[in-house]
Amino acid sequence: MAGGPGRVPVDSATRATELSDAALAGDRRALARLLTAVENRTPVAEAALRSLYPRAGRAHLVGITGPPGAGKSTLVAAMIGQLRSAGRSVAVIAVDPSSPITGGALLGDRVRMQAYASDPDVFIRSMAARGHAGGLASATGAAASVLDAAGFDLIFIETVGTGQSEVEVAAAADTTVVLEAPEMGDEVQAIKAGLLEVADLVVVNKGDRPGAQRTAAQLRAMLVTVPRAGRDGRDARDATDDRPRPKQPEVLITTASSGDGVPALLAALDRHRAAMAGGPSTPARLARAEAQVWAILGDRLRAQLHDENRSGLTSEVMAAVAEHRLDPYSAADRLLRDIVAGRA
Amino acid sequence: MAGGPGRVPVDSATRATELSDAALAGDRRALARLLTAVENRTPVAEAALRSLYPRAGRAHLVGITGPPGAGKSTLVAAMIGQLRSAGRSVAVIAVDPSSPITGGALLGDRVRMQAYASDPDVFIRSMAARGHAGGLASATGAAASVLDAAGFDLIFIETVGTGQSEVEVAAAADTTVVLEAPEMGDEVQAIKAGLLEVADLVVVNKGDRPGAQRTAAQLRAMLVTVPRAGRDGRDARDATDDRPRPKQPEVLITTASSGDGVPALLAALDRHRAAMAGGPSTPARLARAEAQVWAILGDRLRAQLHDENRSGLTSEVMAAVAEHRLDPYSAADRLLRDIVAGRA
Repeated sequence: MAGGPGRVPVDSATRATELSDAALAGDRRALARLLTAVENRTPVAEAALRSLYPRAGRAHLVGITGPPGAGKSTLVAAMIGQLRSAGRSVAVIAVDPSSPITGGALLGDRVRMQAYASDPDVFIRSMAARGHAGGLASATGAAASVLDAAGFDLIFIETVGTGQSEVEVAAAADTTVVLEAPEMGDEVQAIKAGLLEVADLVVVNKGDRPGAQRTAAQLRAMLVTVPRAGRDGRDARDATDDRPRPKQPEVLITTASSGDGVPALLAALDRHRAAMAGGPSTPARLARAEAQVWAILGDRLRAQLHDENRSGLTSEVMAAVAEHRLDPYSAADRLLRDIVAGRA
Repeated sequence: MAGGPGRVPVDSATRATELSDAALAGDRRALARLLTAVENRTPVAEAALRSLYPRAGRAHLVGITGPPGAGKSTLVAAMIGQLRSAGRSVAVIAVDPSSPITGGALLGDRVRMQAYASDPDVFIRSMAARGHAGGLASATGAAASVLDAAGFDLIFIETVGTGQSEVEVAAAADTTVVLEAPEMGDEVQAIKAGLLEVADLVVVNKGDRPGAQRTAAQLRAMLVTVPRAGRDGRDARDATDDRPRPKQPEVLITTASSGDGVPALLAALDRHRAAMAGGPSTPARLARAEAQVWAILGDRLRAQLHDENRSGLTSEVMAAVAEHRLDPYSAADRLLRDIVAGRA
């Protein structure tokens, strides 16, 4: 259970300092490399985050989630346009449901954001949803801290709101925007109901479609009866999360393709941000902090289980569980006993 | 780091024995209660799993995943019909993307399965996707072990294949079926590319639609070039997972609504199962075992962090991270040092 401070190898620490200094000075390639290190959880990332983390905490993190086809990327692109006109800098972490292996086919709509490729105050980063054993929430939280330290005013975290991890990621932002579109199928309806629980703001996009006003009215009616979920995705049966829903989320209508309603949405984001300005340790920020600390604890434990003295035992125990010769509780206890004994 | 065997309270152990005995004797209400305990990770669940786990390992676990609207539930219902005609028992764990709070609105199509409500050899269970901090894969793995011990021949694990956790769950089954439907939007296309990596069998459902044959041909062409992902969702860049893709997954066409192609699919499932019969410790079974052991290790660590002597420190440290006064690595190291010191 060691892994104390000072464990970061010296060359990683040097590289981290170089990249961090360059990124803070505005070097976008250095920033991109730092984010790659963070995604891959390398020693460089650990060293960089140890120094950058205390510089973060000023950006407004906005989660944007909703079912496939609701128009998330188009809306983000529209917000970027208006934010840039107001002189504010924006970063986007687009959590990509596609494969890290097949090359991370970017979602079609995201191409529109490339209009900002040459703007130094806009930074867009795709992050693969798969392959984050330590938790997608911790990976995006760490990436957001780097972008935050680099000085971006707003950081959008865009996820497809149909998976557990993906919704938790969006819900751990300071402000969570749930996007809906009029007229969707049954399965999507069920997804919607789940999403509403994490919303600070609900946006009916594609507002130029006939059903938009009716959908907004239905959502307003639904929201009266939906209790608030834990910001970290725990459900309300969890006794540690009995915070009442602070207030009903506003329901707004936008038409991302034309920009209609986008200024009102940005104003609502600012209001939500101002309302929580009182205390920095909001439930969302605590959830982000816990996700990151928890992932690191998991890494430390994993490193112990796979270190050279113990990896043989670990493999043996896991195989015994896979073959149903040992139950998983006895297996966990056996591994923990060995770690504790190795330490005594 | 304690939590050794014998920690299960005596009354939980008694209750677990009662429920397990009844469930093994065919009492479906007892089985449902056990599964609820497993979902909530109670001491009863721990005691029951310790005794039931060694009795499991015989069922064929089949993951069914695909984008919303591909027809997963209809296909599962069609398979149940044909399996029952052949005298085989079936359980279904339907991972529900909707809320645990709003009452878990069942997906529309799933209603069809209620035709089997009175059949003792069919058992259908919804499981909420949200609220499994320790991992959805571990929760479904544990539930599958209970159903396996209870003697079901096949266990279907149905998930909406758009989220990281949900795909990992399906991919940790013995056989993973990825469902596709002809003609879907851009975002769904990207999801499809990610899903194909975990497929043992690819099924184009809605085979009566005009585009079905063309979609199947495109998928066969795509699959020639798609590398195999780690069964536990790690991506291929992970050096520990360099297993080659054993073979190209078959691409089948079904029309779940009419039952066309379903016998061929069931035959393909049996073939896949027979092909891996050589060794019980397959990568998928190892992934399931690891997910369960890992979740339990996490629970033990979490219990340590929140026990009466340490919860004050833990809260303090997490708040410091949330307020960016402390970086998450230093926080993790601080908590670990305290746990180790408390043990010395």
